[in-house]
Amino acid sequence: MTKQHFISKSTRLRSTPFSDQIEEQGVKSYTVYNHMLLPTVFESIEADAEHLKNFVQVWDVSCQRQVQISGPDAATLVQKLTPRSIKNMQIGKCFYIPMLNEDAGMINDPVLLKLDDDMFWISIADSDILLWAKGYALGLNLDVNIKEPDVYPLAIQGPKSEELLISIFGEEIKKIKFFNFRVLDFEGTKQIIARSGYSKQDGFEIYFKTHEKYFDNVEMGEKLWDTIWEAGKKFNISPGCPNLIDRIEGGLMSYGNDFTKENNPLECNLEKYCNDDVSHDFIGKKALTKIHNDGVKQKIRGITFDGSPCLGIGHPLKVLSKDNKIIGQITSGIYSPRIKKNVGLSMILKDYWEIGENVFIQNLDGSKRNGSITSLPFPD
Amino acid sequence: MTKQHFISKSTRLRSTPFSDQIEEQGVKSYTVYNHMLLPTVFESIEADAEHLKNFVQVWDVSCQRQVQISGPDAATLVQKLTPRSIKNMQIGKCFYIPMLNEDAGMINDPVLLKLDDDMFWISIADSDILLWAKGYALGLNLDVNIKEPDVYPLAIQGPKSEELLISIFGEEIKKIKFFNFRVLDFEGTKQIIARSGYSKQDGFEIYFKTHEKYFDNVEMGEKLWDTIWEAGKKFNISPGCPNLIDRIEGGLMSYGNDFTKENNPLECNLEKYCNDDVSHDFIGKKALTKIHNDGVKQKIRGITFDGSPCLGIGHPLKVLSKDNKIIGQITSGIYSPRIKKNVGLSMILKDYWEIGENVFIQNLDGSKRNGSITSLPFPD
Repeated sequence: MTKQHFISKSTRLRSTPFSDQIEEQGVKSYTVYNHMLLPTVFESIEADAEHLKNFVQVWDVSCQRQVQISGPDAATLVQKLTPRSIKNMQIGKCFYIPMLNEDAGMINDPVLLKLDDDMFWISIADSDILLWAKGYALGLNLDVNIKEPDVYPLAIQGPKSEELLISIFGEEIKKIKFFNFRVLDFEGTKQIIARSGYSKQDGFEIYFKTHEKYFDNVEMGEKLWDTIWEAGKKFNISPGCPNLIDRIEGGLMSYGNDFTKENNPLECNLEKYCNDDVSHDFIGKKALTKIHNDGVKQKIRGITFDGSPCLGIGHPLKVLSKDNKIIGQITSGIYSPRIKKNVGLSMILKDYWEIGENVFIQNLDGSKRNGSITSLPFPD
Repeated sequence: MTKQHFISKSTRLRSTPFSDQIEEQGVKSYTVYNHMLLPTVFESIEADAEHLKNFVQVWDVSCQRQVQISGPDAATLVQKLTPRSIKNMQIGKCFYIPMLNEDAGMINDPVLLKLDDDMFWISIADSDILLWAKGYALGLNLDVNIKEPDVYPLAIQGPKSEELLISIFGEEIKKIKFFNFRVLDFEGTKQIIARSGYSKQDGFEIYFKTHEKYFDNVEMGEKLWDTIWEAGKKFNISPGCPNLIDRIEGGLMSYGNDFTKENNPLECNLEKYCNDDVSHDFIGKKALTKIHNDGVKQKIRGITFDGSPCLGIGHPLKVLSKDNKIIGQITSGIYSPRIKKNVGLSMILKDYWEIGENVFIQNLDGSKRNGSITSLPFPD
């Protein structure tokens, strides 16, 4: 592995209403996501993963910024932004939506929340969709209002998350189905709570929104954090963050890591969000139709590989065929305690993407490890 | 100061063709800029600054991504993106251009390069202008091609930079005037070299572009790096990066730190890039005209302040008036060895922005330091 370096903090790498709590509770490393600090390690990736699978964690995922689109043309604009049909989307639903540029390249893969018929939040991955949506709406002269509201999502993840939230918000928590949200009361403020989150354990996301009765975000953020923390003690709560082991084992892709604007959604195994209704118009439709007709040249696959435990991937690692042709690159990788092998994600060329195909993984020093193509999420 | 944390590297935080060299030469800290790693410290901020002022440094500023706009409507689109007139801009010029949203909020402050009448590069600060320009052009159905080319700028900064580059590229380097560029040969490839850079010392930026005769970016990047390094030995070259002391002393603002989309260009002392030609249409024109007529409520000022040496600002520090009213916040700050005081940048409310005004700076623990409003760049 490459050696460790410090992160230089600055105003530009925005802190969150929970930053003080996070640091007090021992965050060790950060990444930057949507121009904001996102914790990556507390105790260790392994210990954090083990705890997540057994108990409950609170995650500061404020960096999941919201792009709020409202106004008479809101639904029209949102539909233009994704190949997935929102025609039958009901208020209170969350939709995972690929977003494409004119070449059908992926520019984000956010979760869309429908708050009202003319009010949506797009909970974004790491790219400035605020600028994309605004630029497009300005060019089309649509009657919409687009802004980044003061919303800082807090994820409650792990098998004890439901019990924990019931103890704070009551039995209504149980009625929230996967990828649905409800509006619940917290200290006299209305807060959106969805059953969702970037882990394969059960969990919720509280779309924490500040309120004028509080002096600022930090004051109310502390109150919410402290409430969850107090109630969580009996469930062995700990601070956490999106966990590399849990995410890769579960086959959860990461925009910017495992696919970029150079990739189309069919390569990313997102066919089901592209083909359910081809009647509406959207950015990239023509290009996507052509790709669909021609067939894709590569697809994201899981790879298990031997050798010393992989502690994370800084630079992508080349994947080679048995005859040493470059057929992909591992963009996310880690040692899996469950599978007892290294696991990784890679786009793999068509002739090599069958499950069970034997491959080589080339280390940065040129040496090789044996690997094998698997399905996703990784089987036991 | 808050304590130090590690940065978690990943494929998403893109490395550059020079990353191996940087790490070998002892980079200690990074920030993330345009989804890419940007070094922030080598020896120490103080030692790096002292060296920069006396010798020459090579900086990996690959994170200054280029947005290439070409095609029949390229000039039309570029002009829509900024209040600064490009009517009389000649090929070979660099223009600093504010970019505004529809509310006249700053969304970037890049340098525009005119490569040809129908070919521009926008060398961007930290926001996804590729998405903004594409979205807007798609909405307007303009005949343009917009992409992020394989360009990785390398800055050569410091008083010895001209001599160094002459020894590599010849006497033509001398003819490059400030904010102009020329196309020079490197190993049979054409490279754009501008006299520019994010320091107050003399310097150049090589807009390093890969070329098909090389296997990949890294191979040719190593060649360029090694050539500069070899030639630089007799000028006492060292690796470096945008330096916090040099930048703040010189009054160089940073997008995302000292101003954001919540600020208009008049607040940022950018009047001269907004008023020179009001005849063309641009995004935010109506809002900017209203702000201009109403007058601005705050402006960026320098502040000197007492107390223990400031080592950098993670969280903004409140600026208070003598009667304890909040009148601004220091968004970038550092101890200046030249001025022998802490120096910082802050938006300051109108009634308090006169040079010489006495203020208080509130530390994160609530205690206060004495400060004073100054002009920019900081006087001796």
